Amino acid sequence: MPVLYNVNFINPFLHAVIEVLSAMAQVEPRPGKPYINVLHAAKGDVTGLIGVTGYARGTISLTLSKDAILHIVSRMLMTEYTEINDDIIDATGELTNMIAGHAREALEAQGMLFQASSPSVVVGRGHRIDHISGAPVLAIPFSIDHGDFVVETAFTDSVADASLPEK
Amino acid sequence: MPVLYNVNFINPFLHAVIEVLSAMAQVEPRPGKPYINVLHAAKGDVTGLIGVTGYARGTISLTLSKDAILHIVSRMLMTEYTEINDDIIDATGELTNMIAGHAREALEAQGMLFQASSPSVVVGRGHRIDHISGAPVLAIPFSIDHGDFVVETAFTDSVADASLPEK
Repeated sequence: MPVLYNVNFINPFLHAVIEVLSAMAQVEPRPGKPYINVLHAAKGDVTGLIGVTGYARGTISLTLSKDAILHIVSRMLMTEYTEINDDIIDATGELTNMIAGHAREALEAQGMLFQASSPSVVVGRGHRIDHISGAPVLAIPFSIDHGDFVVETAFTDSVADASLPEK
Repeated sequence: MPVLYNVNFINPFLHAVIEVLSAMAQVEPRPGKPYINVLHAAKGDVTGLIGVTGYARGTISLTLSKDAILHIVSRMLMTEYTEINDDIIDATGELTNMIAGHAREALEAQGMLFQASSPSVVVGRGHRIDHISGAPVLAIPFSIDHGDFVVETAFTDSVADASLPEK
């Protein structure tokens, strides 16, 4: 069954990010306009990644600038972090897990049941992350005062809403 | 059900790597001694990643040096690659998919049935990849004349064989 990237699919991810960051770190991210990432490549300094199976095979990623993740985890753990260390890596995995979990709950309510793998976290200045799906990559950008981040998701069998811009 | 990292679990990954690289790229990798990666962090220039669900939740990764992946894909596509580009990224995803697929088949024959997500590929010089599993990370190192690479796997509920060294 193909996954259709329309507002019913986008909103679970958008709300999951806002709810999780607000509850865990008292951070209120400002969402930008969702788009189809035609290059299939997000860039950032820290990425949390989760694979999903079930209704469709795919991936969910959270890619952040160093400043954005340092600010978020500093708020979350009430400790001032200035460098990426094991605490930041573990917290990125936990946030990715929670965001994917919230989104999956909302998708399940619409009849799309996904199982999730455990998370992985990549650290590397300006690394690139590609979703090898052969299908559109949905990107939802966010900004906070301290930097930017993007949530991306891609499925092996997915269809983009024609109203979504390509970038 | 916990995943036990003993020889019955290690061999499917070890053989999958050798079979896939030999069939796809006529490359004969030399396996090193498997170990438990206590730092939870592989380092490399290109990583292919797959999440798994089913018998247990986990991740499988293939992390390579730039020289190793350039050599492998140059053989695989019979084209001389000197830089990491979209061909290299797509081929890394395909190799990761095939290695995970071969390993899953052998594990299924032992009663461990896993579903796999689609692959993601990370590119970034000297990036670090962490499996956030709270359980041991099994690493199987390989070398070819042109460089090194490592296959890692981690599950949320796993147990290491006491005979495996820690590194």
